[in-house]
Amino acid sequence: MGAAPDQFEGFMIHDAKKWTEFKKEKARLNQYDVDIENECCGVCGSDVHTITGGWGDLATTPLCVGHEIIGKVLRVGSKVKSFKPGQRVGVGAQVQSCMRCRMCKSNNENYCPHMVDTYMAPYNEKGGNADLSMDDSQKPMKDSKGNQIFSQGGYSSHSRVHEQFVFPIPDNLPSEIVAPMMCAGLTVYSPLVRAGTGPGKKVAIVGIGGLGHFALIWAKALGAEVTAISHSPNKKEDALALGADHFVSSGDKNWAEPHAFEYDFVLNAADMTNEFDIAQYLSIININGEFHNVGLPDQPLPQFKAQVFASNGSKMGGSHIGSKKEALEMLQLASKIYEKGVKPKIETIDISEKGCSDAVQKVKTNKVRYRVTLTGFHKAFGTGKN
Amino acid sequence: MGAAPDQFEGFMIHDAKKWTEFKKEKARLNQYDVDIENECCGVCGSDVHTITGGWGDLATTPLCVGHEIIGKVLRVGSKVKSFKPGQRVGVGAQVQSCMRCRMCKSNNENYCPHMVDTYMAPYNEKGGNADLSMDDSQKPMKDSKGNQIFSQGGYSSHSRVHEQFVFPIPDNLPSEIVAPMMCAGLTVYSPLVRAGTGPGKKVAIVGIGGLGHFALIWAKALGAEVTAISHSPNKKEDALALGADHFVSSGDKNWAEPHAFEYDFVLNAADMTNEFDIAQYLSIININGEFHNVGLPDQPLPQFKAQVFASNGSKMGGSHIGSKKEALEMLQLASKIYEKGVKPKIETIDISEKGCSDAVQKVKTNKVRYRVTLTGFHKAFGTGKN
Repeated sequence: MGAAPDQFEGFMIHDAKKWTEFKKEKARLNQYDVDIENECCGVCGSDVHTITGGWGDLATTPLCVGHEIIGKVLRVGSKVKSFKPGQRVGVGAQVQSCMRCRMCKSNNENYCPHMVDTYMAPYNEKGGNADLSMDDSQKPMKDSKGNQIFSQGGYSSHSRVHEQFVFPIPDNLPSEIVAPMMCAGLTVYSPLVRAGTGPGKKVAIVGIGGLGHFALIWAKALGAEVTAISHSPNKKEDALALGADHFVSSGDKNWAEPHAFEYDFVLNAADMTNEFDIAQYLSIININGEFHNVGLPDQPLPQFKAQVFASNGSKMGGSHIGSKKEALEMLQLASKIYEKGVKPKIETIDISEKGCSDAVQKVKTNKVRYRVTLTGFHKAFGTGKN
Repeated sequence: MGAAPDQFEGFMIHDAKKWTEFKKEKARLNQYDVDIENECCGVCGSDVHTITGGWGDLATTPLCVGHEIIGKVLRVGSKVKSFKPGQRVGVGAQVQSCMRCRMCKSNNENYCPHMVDTYMAPYNEKGGNADLSMDDSQKPMKDSKGNQIFSQGGYSSHSRVHEQFVFPIPDNLPSEIVAPMMCAGLTVYSPLVRAGTGPGKKVAIVGIGGLGHFALIWAKALGAEVTAISHSPNKKEDALALGADHFVSSGDKNWAEPHAFEYDFVLNAADMTNEFDIAQYLSIININGEFHNVGLPDQPLPQFKAQVFASNGSKMGGSHIGSKKEALEMLQLASKIYEKGVKPKIETIDISEKGCSDAVQKVKTNKVRYRVTLTGFHKAFGTGKN
């Protein structure tokens, strides 16, 4: 087995105004612990929010996005004990944390204030992006010319990632199916389990797209009574097949009324929450239950009064991916239910400049049923020979 | 002991534009189960939001506000088992619920969809205001002329209330001190206990006014480590005396930074949340903790993005008063700590047209330290002779 090369190749974006124009180029590989030869990568809504500038200006260009990576370990650093060359592994939306703070030490490293996202985040010398409490160990990492080094994602030939953020993949799960679990799957699994989803709980999933369709699968597998809520009545059949016990069409004006106080937990994976009637969505929540956002629109939420929580003592919250502990639990669950024929609905597109462009446009226009994984990496990059 | 008269006298508001002009007038008494001769009544921020039209137009005039009532039982209905004439009792911000729904049957009657607020709420024939799922038993109660009957509050001589919403008062608590517990005290006690406030928990109270000062007392008595957060540095001494372990002045620009991820629960009793930097207040919350609103400004909250919850998996919520079960627990706790010298800071003003006017203006201009109770009811109404 060889190491990852000093440079990787990736399909890069240069300008948010030209977010469909991917260029295959070489780029610097950052110096971290597990070297991975990428095999495939899911296409996340985050990739599109990022390259279109919807979540803000591009912090670095050329930029390689992608944070649902499956690949093979090429080489491990001297202190890495959990992985060995040849092993199939995954990488999600986070590649670094400080490993020292209270969050990192309590299986909440996904909330470490020094976290580094998988792409477009400034690496720090000893971990972290130092949004908070910057100290000497949190200096930005710079190259020999004094430029900040940013993380680069998985529409690319190789990855080099700290072992904490590398996940072993159960043998029975196909790579193109498990790739989207790295971000989409984990992003909904974590809040579902933290909300106590299980037998006796009523859970509603709003927005049946990439994230939402995983949420239906997990919530059902965890034992809850599951309702899919969607603006698209034509998703009913898929929703029921994926695990929903009930389907509610939110296109009807008074859709929420019959469901007042019904759901212990509402997981909102929709990307259009900025157009929601917030009071209506909160009205379906059981006493002291939560409306939990994992969809993150470009636009702010509609403005509302504090009174909106008073009729049922509800809450509105959100979360950020999940911990490694949760990722490993999710993968075990996914492996178990896969044996019973339960799996996500994944489309594949071979990676190329055009393939990337087609994939992000399909996500942007909501035409994916329900996730795209970019495949064919070995052919595109001339890898896979180790 | 006699019954309450068919009419009561109260200090009434006729017009939200003339919210400081109280008129002493007779008004109809509604037909419910425990007749109470009112002795005193706390002045709640809700009273001011209501009579100024801040929370919406006045639904009925003349309107008598006040929902922190202490008085003496005059007479009880034939089915009332919990109270007897002569007993000292309290009434808070709710006077009716359906008594049949899942909420009513699970100590969540404060979230009954058919709840009736203590004033300005339309009574229903068999309980409830039928915001939701109106059925035949939830028809609006009307007088002989066909006009809807609205509840009227405690700036008045008498109350007649369903026994579920009447609370027995421990003997050792003075009436003017216990009156504000009926709404302000309960409104903060309920979310504190539902959030698990106790030993090992760090709780912050934002806004040290009527509600906030009760929250400091309860949170400390429940065993938490308590921080008071206020724009008014001159409240530090009072806050520490009431139970705060720490005081944070939120007037300083970067006040939140040293407290990132610190508090398991933030109870926001401030009335100016519409002017808050929401992201800053959410940043002080521990992983998956809650920012809980009990202050309800006239204005909407500042608009924010769903992303605001992502850095710590936090939630924003709110609640509506508390259950009778919680009220009784709170009164026991208040009675116990009163013996140790722990009590709220209450001002008194004798009730009269001018007294009411002075009191609501003092609340509106934030000059109360920390709650006003209107007293001298027997003199003003010629009662107290039973």
